[in-house]
Amino acid sequence: MIKSKGYVAQHSFTALKPMEFEREEPKENEIALEVMYCGVCHSDIHQVKNEWHNTVYPCMPGHEVVGRVTSVGACVTRHGVGDIVGVGCMIDSCRECAPCKEGAENYCEGPNSWLATYNGPMIPAKKATTGTNMYGRDNTFGGYSTTLVVAEDFALKIPEGLKPAQAAPLLCAGVTTYSPMKHWGVGPGKTVAILGFGGLGNIAQKIAKAMGAEVVVFTTHQAKVNEAPVVGAYAVDVEDDDAMARYANTFDFILSTIPKKTDLTPFVPMLKRDGTMTIVGALEPLEPFNNMEVAAHRRSIAGSLIGSIAETEEVLAFCAEHGIAPDIETISIEEINEAYDKVEDGEVRYRYVIDMASLKGAE
Amino acid sequence: MIKSKGYVAQHSFTALKPMEFEREEPKENEIALEVMYCGVCHSDIHQVKNEWHNTVYPCMPGHEVVGRVTSVGACVTRHGVGDIVGVGCMIDSCRECAPCKEGAENYCEGPNSWLATYNGPMIPAKKATTGTNMYGRDNTFGGYSTTLVVAEDFALKIPEGLKPAQAAPLLCAGVTTYSPMKHWGVGPGKTVAILGFGGLGNIAQKIAKAMGAEVVVFTTHQAKVNEAPVVGAYAVDVEDDDAMARYANTFDFILSTIPKKTDLTPFVPMLKRDGTMTIVGALEPLEPFNNMEVAAHRRSIAGSLIGSIAETEEVLAFCAEHGIAPDIETISIEEINEAYDKVEDGEVRYRYVIDMASLKGAE
Repeated sequence: MIKSKGYVAQHSFTALKPMEFEREEPKENEIALEVMYCGVCHSDIHQVKNEWHNTVYPCMPGHEVVGRVTSVGACVTRHGVGDIVGVGCMIDSCRECAPCKEGAENYCEGPNSWLATYNGPMIPAKKATTGTNMYGRDNTFGGYSTTLVVAEDFALKIPEGLKPAQAAPLLCAGVTTYSPMKHWGVGPGKTVAILGFGGLGNIAQKIAKAMGAEVVVFTTHQAKVNEAPVVGAYAVDVEDDDAMARYANTFDFILSTIPKKTDLTPFVPMLKRDGTMTIVGALEPLEPFNNMEVAAHRRSIAGSLIGSIAETEEVLAFCAEHGIAPDIETISIEEINEAYDKVEDGEVRYRYVIDMASLKGAE
Repeated sequence: MIKSKGYVAQHSFTALKPMEFEREEPKENEIALEVMYCGVCHSDIHQVKNEWHNTVYPCMPGHEVVGRVTSVGACVTRHGVGDIVGVGCMIDSCRECAPCKEGAENYCEGPNSWLATYNGPMIPAKKATTGTNMYGRDNTFGGYSTTLVVAEDFALKIPEGLKPAQAAPLLCAGVTTYSPMKHWGVGPGKTVAILGFGGLGNIAQKIAKAMGAEVVVFTTHQAKVNEAPVVGAYAVDVEDDDAMARYANTFDFILSTIPKKTDLTPFVPMLKRDGTMTIVGALEPLEPFNNMEVAAHRRSIAGSLIGSIAETEEVLAFCAEHGIAPDIETISIEEINEAYDKVEDGEVRYRYVIDMASLKGAE
């Protein structure tokens, strides 16, 4: 067993606090990591606060993990001790369903879907038809910890051109925005709107521009509009009616990264004919759309869930190649509860990344 | 001027009654028709009852028109006197925007969009920025009449293999379902669900099968489930929970022809990964969707609006070639108000078509 320390929520209404625990040694196809950095995703907050009504406590979040390999199972060939690797939202999948065989593990249709890095598997044993689940556990502990154990093929090498702390948000925020933009053909000659200017919006607009598209970010934060040029973005305040009106029939693709249910109807008329609005931020019932506006130009409203392992590898390589990276603020683990408040208030610029060295000494 | 007779609603709350009126003689690129048959579309009822809040009265519905050419303008080359032709939802469009030039007139982005066969143009003069509109009129009178005048290229020859009365519903119901099924790739090896088993659902399931797909129709009418084999369909009662549960992750494409706002969330999990549900029946604010279900398998919810002139020509040829046609009940114009009640109650099998010879003698 691997002695470990992590930060956990014991209930939906309590602050995260340190907890000592043990992880099993890596199996033959698994590797163990010493976690160096872990990004703070808005979904960590949804999960800790049980806003998706499926949280198992204690809940140890963290699915934007960069760490150093400390040991490897007997059959591991991809990684060696000392390698710097990243782990995103998944640490395993069924490997047998059609999506898994096609390399779309994020759409795993196995009996328990993919194994989430924390609060996994997606279908808890008590809901599984057999009463147990294929992964043998109802809850996994994520990257807000000193260690992580993961199937070797769910860990990706961090390219040399990326700083480990900045690579962390690519494992979720990066691939969650890269995957749909690739799928819906973002590229040269395309116009793209990014809704929401948090951790996902920040990296999404960089990726979209690096893909060759014209990009406009929409935000409710006037301060972020003013600061946008600092991070290479052009942003519009959604309360600026004149600006909003200018964008009718403008975008081939709109990516909504807004992390909660929001009335997106003002953005539908901004889609060109045959344009698609894909919603990755809000995994919950949406505000209603008016099909008169959707049908009038054969528009689509779609959803997309994180990205595959291959796409995670791609987005890491893509960002290294294009010299782009998330804008982050590094924090210590003791600052995590305050950081959650700031994420909810839109005060972070643009992603908090926990320096996990701070956890070793934390009480 | 062409002396004409038609059936009109004077208000949203009154029955349709006969009215005498005159149409202008066809301009150089237009043709005049003697209307033989006109289908009764659920949108006629929406429009007469002002359920889309844009009806100009008196309102003379009818956009599934088959007639005989009685005169042609000086420059007309496509049609001759005596030809049997069909006219759908549009009688003209701007002809200058990108969609018009690409042959997608149904997505016309001109200043008044396409000219609707009745209650057109879509943007009335009083709402147009100039106070007038390009078509010079706020209201057009449709096919519940003895005559129609239309731009020659918005009238399509009825193929010899189709009976004129049965061809009528193809001009709206047919092309409205054919267009999205073609666009989203319905064909051999695909599984398709048709939601709603009225005039659109009836022809949609025939077209989908003729395209080579496996097709299931969903209806709220148990009687229609029982009668489905009579029209070559396989139908499921949406209140049959066991049947509904069988179709999880089954369909590549779902076409909702349900003519009003309906909770479609039970059908989202029936879509395969990357499947699309396209809504053509309800042109209004929809019930909310749960993005957890949409995103989980990268599904899409889309809209589609009637079809282009080229697609209308295609669906006529397609049905003639495959020996399929809508199942209709022919009525006289005096039965129209009673027919509206039956359409709303789902009692029609499956489309009413008015034999317009009945109008000549109507009081």
